[in-house]
Amino acid sequence: MTDVLALLQSHRSIRRFRPDPLPDGLLETIVRCGQQAASSSNIQAYRIINVTDASLRDTLAELAGQQEYVRLAPVFLVFCADLRRAQKVCDRIGPPFVPGMTEHFIIATVDTALCGQNCVVAAESQGLGCCYIGAVRNHPAEISALLALPEQVYPLFGLCIGYPDQTVEVKPRLPLGAVLQENRYSEEHDAELIAEYDATMQAYYGSRSDHRKDSSWSREIAALAGREARPHMAAFLKERGFLLR
Amino acid sequence: MTDVLALLQSHRSIRRFRPDPLPDGLLETIVRCGQQAASSSNIQAYRIINVTDASLRDTLAELAGQQEYVRLAPVFLVFCADLRRAQKVCDRIGPPFVPGMTEHFIIATVDTALCGQNCVVAAESQGLGCCYIGAVRNHPAEISALLALPEQVYPLFGLCIGYPDQTVEVKPRLPLGAVLQENRYSEEHDAELIAEYDATMQAYYGSRSDHRKDSSWSREIAALAGREARPHMAAFLKERGFLLR
Repeated sequence: MTDVLALLQSHRSIRRFRPDPLPDGLLETIVRCGQQAASSSNIQAYRIINVTDASLRDTLAELAGQQEYVRLAPVFLVFCADLRRAQKVCDRIGPPFVPGMTEHFIIATVDTALCGQNCVVAAESQGLGCCYIGAVRNHPAEISALLALPEQVYPLFGLCIGYPDQTVEVKPRLPLGAVLQENRYSEEHDAELIAEYDATMQAYYGSRSDHRKDSSWSREIAALAGREARPHMAAFLKERGFLLR
Repeated sequence: MTDVLALLQSHRSIRRFRPDPLPDGLLETIVRCGQQAASSSNIQAYRIINVTDASLRDTLAELAGQQEYVRLAPVFLVFCADLRRAQKVCDRIGPPFVPGMTEHFIIATVDTALCGQNCVVAAESQGLGCCYIGAVRNHPAEISALLALPEQVYPLFGLCIGYPDQTVEVKPRLPLGAVLQENRYSEEHDAELIAEYDATMQAYYGSRSDHRKDSSWSREIAALAGREARPHMAAFLKERGFLLR
């Protein structure tokens, strides 16, 4: 199974798809693969909405930063972290549901992410391409209303799936030493490793037609971490019952 | 690549390992597979501590609910959600790092989970078994001190890796219809689907020697969702700079 290692290392986000639909039953198999990912205490705290309705897709694409591929991908799934199912079980057999625990929020978020990643690996093993859409958190209240998400549920990410209609280079990642360390966290070599990576990424961006040539990883990350990203999220989550307490 | 679909659907958590170490270089390949998972804006907001020190392992096993396999697994990794690297980039080239955004917390948590799941798939494809250890969140402050985790970093989960020394049945998951839905969230069939699943799981538990025979999924989930799980998490995260604001 060396080819699984090759498959995992050949991931790239795909944003342009052929119109071909998935073969019958494949989406269900992909989601079954997602379900078999580990789940904290087997709570399976997620629900996946397969958005097939064209006008719903249009609206979601609009709300997710006007990303055309949300509209055009043969499959678009919204992965929702879901404590509602557990809440209803508590309502039925007790003890009373304890709302708003940060730990439950983490469990649901991680469960959903593990499930999503297994879906991506499953899809890519079948020649499909995928793109996560974090921008479902741009307007989570509106998306929750559109998909009828109840309290204790929030849209974590979308996922476009379809047969690729573009060629994309694998994106280089940070040098291994910046990520994997022994026994203790150490920043000792970060400066040089990040400088090395900035050079790698400048070469990579330079080879792409869809990216600013003068960018670097450091500049992109500073722009992301130096802004109030999606400042509505905390209030939105609290309003939906995730009190983060 | 049908075997990838089979591989993903054959996951089980492994808690007993042969003492054999991993072949040279395999851990690094596994982590490289983890790194190639999608990352929000390529921030790669994680760091992985490979705990090789025996006395450190003893302490971690103790802190993680006395789980022997944390001590005995050939490899034990602690996956940390890490915004520190991004913070330092901001310190270096500006703009100033914006601490405490809930959205950044979600990004780091999901990035780490996607990376972890790719590591699990990579390891399992090579005949290894894995077990996530959420219990690193039992005493996250103590573990952070032991591993010298700085602010803007938190231990999300551990991961035991090694060659299995036990046979475990694949755990059945919720019926697909309870998880995958079209266009709208619907609880219409949840009651019957969960009753069906409770019956499945009672049969599954009955076949295992290590589990209470009279349990059901509903009872286990109610016990989890009906208690103040890890009530220290919010205060711990805030203390470490994740203000959840």
